[in-house]
Amino acid sequence: MDPRFDQVRALLPTLGVDAIALIPGPNLDRLLGHSFHLMERPLVVVIDSQQARAIVPKIELSILQDTGFTGECMVWRDEDGYQAAFDQLFADSGIQSLGVEGMRMRVFESMAIQSANPSIHVSNQSLAIDALRQAKSDEEITALRKAIQISEAALEDVLATVKVGDTEKDIESRLVQALFAHGAEDLSFAPIVAAGGNSANPHASARADYAIQAGDPLLIDFGARYGHMNADITRTFFVAHVSDKHQRFYNTVLAANRAGCTLDPKNVSCHDLNEAATQVLRDSEFSEHILHKTGHSLGRDVHETPHIMAGEHSPITEGMVFTVEPGLYIQDEIGVRIEDDIWVHQGELVSLTTFGRELRVVEA
Amino acid sequence: MDPRFDQVRALLPTLGVDAIALIPGPNLDRLLGHSFHLMERPLVVVIDSQQARAIVPKIELSILQDTGFTGECMVWRDEDGYQAAFDQLFADSGIQSLGVEGMRMRVFESMAIQSANPSIHVSNQSLAIDALRQAKSDEEITALRKAIQISEAALEDVLATVKVGDTEKDIESRLVQALFAHGAEDLSFAPIVAAGGNSANPHASARADYAIQAGDPLLIDFGARYGHMNADITRTFFVAHVSDKHQRFYNTVLAANRAGCTLDPKNVSCHDLNEAATQVLRDSEFSEHILHKTGHSLGRDVHETPHIMAGEHSPITEGMVFTVEPGLYIQDEIGVRIEDDIWVHQGELVSLTTFGRELRVVEA
Repeated sequence: MDPRFDQVRALLPTLGVDAIALIPGPNLDRLLGHSFHLMERPLVVVIDSQQARAIVPKIELSILQDTGFTGECMVWRDEDGYQAAFDQLFADSGIQSLGVEGMRMRVFESMAIQSANPSIHVSNQSLAIDALRQAKSDEEITALRKAIQISEAALEDVLATVKVGDTEKDIESRLVQALFAHGAEDLSFAPIVAAGGNSANPHASARADYAIQAGDPLLIDFGARYGHMNADITRTFFVAHVSDKHQRFYNTVLAANRAGCTLDPKNVSCHDLNEAATQVLRDSEFSEHILHKTGHSLGRDVHETPHIMAGEHSPITEGMVFTVEPGLYIQDEIGVRIEDDIWVHQGELVSLTTFGRELRVVEA
Repeated sequence: MDPRFDQVRALLPTLGVDAIALIPGPNLDRLLGHSFHLMERPLVVVIDSQQARAIVPKIELSILQDTGFTGECMVWRDEDGYQAAFDQLFADSGIQSLGVEGMRMRVFESMAIQSANPSIHVSNQSLAIDALRQAKSDEEITALRKAIQISEAALEDVLATVKVGDTEKDIESRLVQALFAHGAEDLSFAPIVAAGGNSANPHASARADYAIQAGDPLLIDFGARYGHMNADITRTFFVAHVSDKHQRFYNTVLAANRAGCTLDPKNVSCHDLNEAATQVLRDSEFSEHILHKTGHSLGRDVHETPHIMAGEHSPITEGMVFTVEPGLYIQDEIGVRIEDDIWVHQGELVSLTTFGRELRVVEA
């Protein structure tokens, strides 16, 4: 019995399920030490109290075995389709209740399970399964530090090149090149580079048809992936000059960021941390421009649970990593977000991100 | 009523469903002209015979409206959760059967629908919905040509730098930087750069701890994304020299690629095209080393349906774009794959990829 699955197996009685199914993604990656692609070919590892078995496309079989996986494999080939492999594993297995990664598993995979055994009860256990990744290992922190170092070095390089007349796309392209030049293994996500009024969209796309102007805010939300860990950093700059109002706007967000990042985490919940940052925004002249929660946990996924949000009463615990990213947004005018990656270490909040947070005017 | 949804609405009687639900991804992107993120915050557009409505996170509302979406929006905020928005749309809507993108929608979204209306029948209609994207528009072909041009220019740059002693990671990093330097908006997927025996894994990951050696095969499978379209190209090279056996091995795959790429597509199915390429491999001295089908459709998704595979009897039709990527793999020794992107235009197969296919020794 593969000891790498012990943590998952230990969840079975707690969750009241006969088995747990994992699919390619950070949970399976962490256990097997290899990243499989989540593609149209289903690969499912099913862990029950006795064994770990897998539904695996022929094309991935040798890779799965190379990870040291020794469980029974229901192998399927493209020309035959995958249903027979699901039937073989689920039809007479005695698994009547199955916990799945419901935030990740797709409807067609769950349908294949239910087609194999129409009486099976499938439940979404993403929270409990993901929680196994909540306290980060030393190895993961080392990798995340490196991802952040790469990201911050790339940002500094790119800032030195920003000039009036650049498009957001120009800056995005230079940023991505700099990330890989500094050693990124991948992007954590497609960067957000948004200037002027576009910065007011928290999920803006970089534009190729807008030239940045003096006085524009320039919001950059990005990160490098390294060693399976994702950096996620936001800084907002101003191009050439900044108005008094925008200075006050920026410093309000900065104060909220500081309130969140420097809290004593003892006996504090995610809800409390969100309150600490958000209350600064609420108490300001810009309170009507709050749009989102304070942050999210971070690791092998960019967005992990628990989130740093109202109503999330789970405690801040040793080893967690999360973002503190308060923001304010005036539609079509300005958005400011300042985002740090925070590690809970020896009972304190430690910022893994170190890039300067004071208001900075580029190309002054 | 938004005419952009007419194509989807026209599927309702054919599929025998009351409504179709779309989530962020290429189908919704194409209709709305904007890419939403598929994240933990559900965004669902539901199209029935009368209207298009949306379940939308508050944070995305203005972006959805900016696309010209005028239907009713069930808006939800992080602090309240999303279930009430699902209840509002599905509980008393009269929708008793719903077609979803089952290859893309996640289990938690489908559970939220079923929780809102436990008697609703949810079916996976990915094939029919994706088929709306099968014939590419002129605009899409122009974008794909550009994506391919960027990819081929980047590959040529990188080949000029390959030397014995490089790791696969070194080459991958230089390739990614070159792709963005040439204008890629994103990567189609994380590139595969695999040398020596690693080339025998069709989904290999680049290694940082293996220095490439004279005589190694060097397989590179990659592509740039541009204008929402994905290039997907594979070429296999040899480092410094090539053995007689590997030369025969390479030329067998090349002959299969040519058989697939130059077929007269009149009255030909995907199955037939797969046969034309695969038969060349079967008839060779290397027939035991066949591992996968010939290809897949290509566009806004890297892997689209229909696939070019045995048993896929749908016809090759005007406007389709697909890959022809036969390969042969001897475990721990060598893999060769040669992949082109083929457009069906005016009744002929047109290769959009133009990078040389003849056996090429780099750093000779």
